[in-house]
Amino acid sequence: MSKHSIKAGLPPGSLIHVGKQKVENVRIRLLRYSEDKWTEKELQVSQASLEGLDKSSVYWLRVEGVHDADTIGQLGRGLGIHPLVLEDVLDTGERPKIENYLDYLHLEVKTVVYNSQAGKFNLEQESFVLGENYLISFSESSADIYNPVLERIKAKAGMIRSSGADYLLYALLDVIVDNYFVALEGLGEEIDGIQDELVTNPVPATMHFINELKTQMLYLHRSVWPMREIIGFLARRETPLVNESTQLYIRDLYDHIIQVMDTTETLRDILTSMMDMYLNSVSNRMNEVMKVLTIIATIFIPLTFIVGVYGMNIDNMPELHWRWFYPVLWVIMFAIAVGMMVFFKRKKWW
Amino acid sequence: MSKHSIKAGLPPGSLIHVGKQKVENVRIRLLRYSEDKWTEKELQVSQASLEGLDKSSVYWLRVEGVHDADTIGQLGRGLGIHPLVLEDVLDTGERPKIENYLDYLHLEVKTVVYNSQAGKFNLEQESFVLGENYLISFSESSADIYNPVLERIKAKAGMIRSSGADYLLYALLDVIVDNYFVALEGLGEEIDGIQDELVTNPVPATMHFINELKTQMLYLHRSVWPMREIIGFLARRETPLVNESTQLYIRDLYDHIIQVMDTTETLRDILTSMMDMYLNSVSNRMNEVMKVLTIIATIFIPLTFIVGVYGMNIDNMPELHWRWFYPVLWVIMFAIAVGMMVFFKRKKWW
Amino acid sequence: MSKHSIKAGLPPGSLIHVGKQKVENVRIRLLRYSEDKWTEKELQVSQASLEGLDKSSVYWLRVEGVHDADTIGQLGRGLGIHPLVLEDVLDTGERPKIENYLDYLHLEVKTVVYNSQAGKFNLEQESFVLGENYLISFSESSADIYNPVLERIKAKAGMIRSSGADYLLYALLDVIVDNYFVALEGLGEEIDGIQDELVTNPVPATMHFINELKTQMLYLHRSVWPMREIIGFLARRETPLVNESTQLYIRDLYDHIIQVMDTTETLRDILTSMMDMYLNSVSNRMNEVMKVLTIIATIFIPLTFIVGVYGMNIDNMPELHWRWFYPVLWVIMFAIAVGMMVFFKRKKWW
Amino acid sequence: MSKHSIKAGLPPGSLIHVGKQKVENVRIRLLRYSEDKWTEKELQVSQASLEGLDKSSVYWLRVEGVHDADTIGQLGRGLGIHPLVLEDVLDTGERPKIENYLDYLHLEVKTVVYNSQAGKFNLEQESFVLGENYLISFSESSADIYNPVLERIKAKAGMIRSSGADYLLYALLDVIVDNYFVALEGLGEEIDGIQDELVTNPVPATMHFINELKTQMLYLHRSVWPMREIIGFLARRETPLVNESTQLYIRDLYDHIIQVMDTTETLRDILTSMMDMYLNSVSNRMNEVMKVLTIIATIFIPLTFIVGVYGMNIDNMPELHWRWFYPVLWVIMFAIAVGMMVFFKRKKWW
Amino acid sequence: MSKHSIKAGLPPGSLIHVGKQKVENVRIRLLRYSEDKWTEKELQVSQASLEGLDKSSVYWLRVEGVHDADTIGQLGRGLGIHPLVLEDVLDTGERPKIENYLDYLHLEVKTVVYNSQAGKFNLEQESFVLGENYLISFSESSADIYNPVLERIKAKAGMIRSSGADYLLYALLDVIVDNYFVALEGLGEEIDGIQDELVTNPVPATMHFINELKTQMLYLHRSVWPMREIIGFLARRETPLVNESTQLYIRDLYDHIIQVMDTTETLRDILTSMMDMYLNSVSNRMNEVMKVLTIIATIFIPLTFIVGVYGMNIDNMPELHWRWFYPVLWVIMFAIAVGMMVFFKRKKWW
Repeated sequence: MSKHSIKAGLPPGSLIHVGKQKVENVRIRLLRYSEDKWTEKELQVSQASLEGLDKSSVYWLRVEGVHDADTIGQLGRGLGIHPLVLEDVLDTGERPKIENYLDYLHLEVKTVVYNSQAGKFNLEQESFVLGENYLISFSESSADIYNPVLERIKAKAGMIRSSGADYLLYALLDVIVDNYFVALEGLGEEIDGIQDELVTNPVPATMHFINELKTQMLYLHRSVWPMREIIGFLARRETPLVNESTQLYIRDLYDHIIQVMDTTETLRDILTSMMDMYLNSVSNRMNEVMKVLTIIATIFIPLTFIVGVYGMNIDNMPELHWRWFYPVLWVIMFAIAVGMMVFFKRKKWW
Repeated sequence: MSKHSIKAGLPPGSLIHVGKQKVENVRIRLLRYSEDKWTEKELQVSQASLEGLDKSSVYWLRVEGVHDADTIGQLGRGLGIHPLVLEDVLDTGERPKIENYLDYLHLEVKTVVYNSQAGKFNLEQESFVLGENYLISFSESSADIYNPVLERIKAKAGMIRSSGADYLLYALLDVIVDNYFVALEGLGEEIDGIQDELVTNPVPATMHFINELKTQMLYLHRSVWPMREIIGFLARRETPLVNESTQLYIRDLYDHIIQVMDTTETLRDILTSMMDMYLNSVSNRMNEVMKVLTIIATIFIPLTFIVGVYGMNIDNMPELHWRWFYPVLWVIMFAIAVGMMVFFKRKKWW
Repeated sequence: MSKHSIKAGLPPGSLIHVGKQKVENVRIRLLRYSEDKWTEKELQVSQASLEGLDKSSVYWLRVEGVHDADTIGQLGRGLGIHPLVLEDVLDTGERPKIENYLDYLHLEVKTVVYNSQAGKFNLEQESFVLGENYLISFSESSADIYNPVLERIKAKAGMIRSSGADYLLYALLDVIVDNYFVALEGLGEEIDGIQDELVTNPVPATMHFINELKTQMLYLHRSVWPMREIIGFLARRETPLVNESTQLYIRDLYDHIIQVMDTTETLRDILTSMMDMYLNSVSNRMNEVMKVLTIIATIFIPLTFIVGVYGMNIDNMPELHWRWFYPVLWVIMFAIAVGMMVFFKRKKWW
Repeated sequence: MSKHSIKAGLPPGSLIHVGKQKVENVRIRLLRYSEDKWTEKELQVSQASLEGLDKSSVYWLRVEGVHDADTIGQLGRGLGIHPLVLEDVLDTGERPKIENYLDYLHLEVKTVVYNSQAGKFNLEQESFVLGENYLISFSESSADIYNPVLERIKAKAGMIRSSGADYLLYALLDVIVDNYFVALEGLGEEIDGIQDELVTNPVPATMHFINELKTQMLYLHRSVWPMREIIGFLARRETPLVNESTQLYIRDLYDHIIQVMDTTETLRDILTSMMDMYLNSVSNRMNEVMKVLTIIATIFIPLTFIVGVYGMNIDNMPELHWRWFYPVLWVIMFAIAVGMMVFFKRKKWW
Repeated sequence: MSKHSIKAGLPPGSLIHVGKQKVENVRIRLLRYSEDKWTEKELQVSQASLEGLDKSSVYWLRVEGVHDADTIGQLGRGLGIHPLVLEDVLDTGERPKIENYLDYLHLEVKTVVYNSQAGKFNLEQESFVLGENYLISFSESSADIYNPVLERIKAKAGMIRSSGADYLLYALLDVIVDNYFVALEGLGEEIDGIQDELVTNPVPATMHFINELKTQMLYLHRSVWPMREIIGFLARRETPLVNESTQLYIRDLYDHIIQVMDTTETLRDILTSMMDMYLNSVSNRMNEVMKVLTIIATIFIPLTFIVGVYGMNIDNMPELHWRWFYPVLWVIMFAIAVGMMVFFKRKKWW
């Protein structure tokens, strides 16, 4: 849980970083591209400005690192972004949301980067400010997941170079949603991996593992759920900043986010039924243990009583002196034991 | 779970097959029919085109096999289908959906073919592109479930020959929904088949079987649920591609899909209560086992104590030397055993 | 579950009976009534027609028995009813529904006839076709539950004779809904009947009985739930076939169906808490059994050890030769037993 | 459950009392009040009429006792009330509802009178007919809960004397809702009362008590839930019979009914978690019992084996003849017992 | 639960304090501020009035202490506030709500002040009356949580001094919502603190602690849930009392309240799964205990039987006289014990 409470009592728009520092320095790069060319350069905070932009190009300002409130504040003022936006950018515990500031759109989303070694994913916050022909992206760390889009821009692959900033936003959101699939499939494989173990050898560690996966699914669900509204807002074109030509792609993205939610639900249902199976396996093993105890105890308790009888020191016990009594007694005890076993067998306890 | 993640980072409309190859080669057949005649021919990929279609006929282009991205891509370009449609056709893990491209409708649905031997069903994806007087269907494997419709066209049964492409789409969806009923009734019979076993002989395998059925119902539910929206969209005639005369039949189909969902829900509720009954049966058997242990132990433990007393080697134990002590002791022990049994009987433990 | 699947692949409007035959022959009777007189006659299939009806009378065509697809088909063609309606009439597994065919309304509802001897109810399907001044009713068996309405018509009781066909439909639906109350109250009494047994003597049969009641409630719920929409459709007067004067009565009926659903919910909640109580009773009894075992075992195990000690044949055991050792030992053992009991009493295990 | 089923098959508006007789005779009193004066008189059934009412006064006709269908029927005809209203008045098992008859409103609500001695509440039905300047109230028994309102009218307290019949209705509903709070707080105190008992001494009776409270909450919930719609209908002023000046008060009442529902939900959640705590307490006690058994048994079983060994009559057992064997054996056995105890202590079983 | 029931039967607007007295005396302070200056003074009840307010200033009337119905009543009359508002102010058990009185808005909200020592939070009620350029706040105790806002006003920090009364209301609500985060994070830390304990040493006290946290979350949820509607009402600007410039901040606040609800849900889910883990831990420990019993009992029961056999006093038992029988018997018994252990080891019971 993030430490939102450190901002209690402060006025709105107070710029305080909430979260962990993930990169050394804040790095700002500006990518400018149009149909025929692209340029990229690294900017100082003081250089960033939205004035004098060429309408025929798309500008992508990538900010990597949001731990430095001063830098982000200075940058925001230079770009003319509302303090409330900057506050959200700095607060990495914000819920995904979309806010329409008329001139620009403000989006907060979560990326999920799955680490297959650790079997876990990291949630990071991405903030976007979408203007008419510019997009500003704020990442908590170095935004490697955007690399495929960068390469497509540079390689002029697909229609990205001939589209506007809204298509760029779509392309980045698409990469983010694709990473949800990567995470879900990774978790799905882990779940498959413990299916067998569950029945053959249910140990408490299995249960903790299932519980941890459930908690992870819970956090994933909380991050994905608001994405539906955000992408739905874009898909309905409630803002003129989204062009009609992009709408079709965003609707496709919307279908993907629905599918992510579906898969999340399915995995949660499967985890729940795995938990049931685990508990059942444990209880089955316990029952087996108890049955063995019962069978051994019920066979030997009467026999122990019998041998106890003939261990008594009472004077007048005629059986003790019969000639074949000892072997006969063995036969009797054997018969009792066998009788018991037959009884258990019939009752299908064995 | 399908491997959607292999497309992570690719631009939209990237044609990559996601799923398993189910037939050897992609096969394309064109069926043309009107009120008075029908012709069918096999096409090469390069021959497929939507130009110069006769308005008075209905054209059904059947594509069987979607594993070859190149072929599907070439076909799609020839037919002028949007790349996003082709991407969905190739991705067999897509959620059922309907998308309106103004000139044509794009549908993704799931067929459920029940295999009564295996007691399982196979989910396959069917894609449709519905135009003014043509329908293109993409099947993962050879689409045998469409055979009844084919025969009806050729035999001029019902009103299919005198209706348009929308009625053809209806007829195919109707067959698909009918197959849901086949699957549900098959599963229903399997469930009936284990009802008795559940009470008389609850083994862990039963539980795994119930769990597997539940998982199957879950996947079925996920496939059927979005069908409601799809058929509802058609039934509300939100597109001019659906004629008023067909609407009545689609409303009937809508009722069927609601009934499928109802039955799915009922089966899930029954499976849940079967699980409860299974757990209860197991617990009843365990209780029975424990009762037998308790009864035998509580009867013999005091008796064993008594015979232990008279096995002591203490010098001065007058009872040992009484003449009738041995038979009297037997009587006493017998009385204790009977008393215990009566006690248990009264407590209704027996 | 009905065998809907036998229709898989057939064209819409295929007339196939799904369900069980419940009467020998299909019987068709026509009741014609107006303010001042009534006549009733038995019809042959070929005689049924909707032409030349007198606008000042109400015509009620009662069809009893829907197992004969040919007869129903011939009848339907004579009356000019759409094949989709006839298909639903013949398929007794249809979900309750209402369908507006402009000239007439088509309703499918379920009757619940409670059999107090068997403690069960039978679900049967009733189909209605409501026209301007006629009502056609299709019953699976002889429709005895309509008798009160028939008598009211013949006896000119209430306002039925002076009202139209829509009021007749209301009257029949009212009788059907009243029978839901009869069934619910019957089930309610059965539930009351096992309340006591549940606590005093919980046997597995009780649980199966509760489970069966739950399944019955489930089917009842599935039949009643869609009735809400149907009656709501009529109450909102979305069709001119329902007169304003009848609307008030249908709204009253709507309240009744809401009450039926409420009662169903209440009974389900009660059954769920009975299940909990049953499981708790079973577990209480088991705990009692285990406590008796524990108490007897923990009292006698130490005592048996003690008498075992003095049964040893070791040469040098001075106690064995003490004069009062035997009675002293009894006192010691008695003290141990009493001490144990006091301990258990204090712990409130007794 | 009420015996609604006795009306099965009867025409609508059939006047049959459903429920229990709660007062000796039906008593009818008419209270007439205006800003400056009030009069009250007892009426015969035949005297009741709505004709010739003075527009400047408010008339409140209180009917106590609804068991006599004839009297209520005669009264209803005299007042010109629709038979469906009278049917609902007589059927005390009706669900709370509101029905707009244009000239007048018909309300059915439930009063909850809490009996703190019995720890239970009684549900009774109140029916209202609200006209332009009259209110008719039907109570099952003597309507003592209205006394505060009566006194306020007579004492000219508050604004009731200067307001219309709609305010009178509001005042009566307000008293009814206040009584829900009384019942909820009473149940809340009972729940608090068993909190301690739950942990220290969980007996099956506690569980039945919780279950009974849950059932009571269930019935309360079913009675309160429809009240929300009823008061919401009045608060939205969907009828001209409610004046704008009263609306504010009804909105306040609406907030109260929401609060009643909230409290009901909270109590149900608390009861559910109490049930969990009860089951956990029972299971904890059982575990404690089992642990004692296990500890005593595992300590003494090996010791009993040892003394059994030296009770054997085998000729050649050298230990038996060692001089210090007996005390040494005691030391060994004591060491085993202590070792066991230390083992259990380490495992934190003690 | 508050004692709302003491008002049963009283007319609306009856001024009765429901709750606990939390401060000695009611204290009333008036803060007046505008862009360039601020003044604060303590008022007597009789001095409070809304007449002659300067339109260019904002007036904040802070009332601390609502236990004295007379004082609040006198104050309310002086300010011209509706009696229903005053009634709600005095009833500290009211549900959060917003009510539009056209001239002014009335809000009831709950503050949550977390006490980290006690690990609990206190719920207190705050009432607001928002007029055109005044805000009246009623607090149950000394409203220390407003101090940050007071300081911002006095220090002219942020835009509060240049905004209207609606911004002041926003600022106070913002502080209240921030305190929800403080409470949630405090509870979150407590939950983290017991995570480890849960698995290593599950004691019943842990369960009661979890249950108590759940109850606290329940009350928090009930307080936060209606806040959504209240802030949503303000954010939609359904009243002209909220300026457009403030709307953006209120929308930000709305996002925060959604996040509070999300966090509440997450914590509840975590508590539920902790409960499951606790129960599982308890059951695992119990199973371990039972296994030890079973293993020790099943090893020694057969051995005890064997030594019992050779303790019998039967005359003719040849083994007793064999020379090496005693050591051989030890070997046999040892072999049985080892065999048993191997059997258990193979079954993975150890």
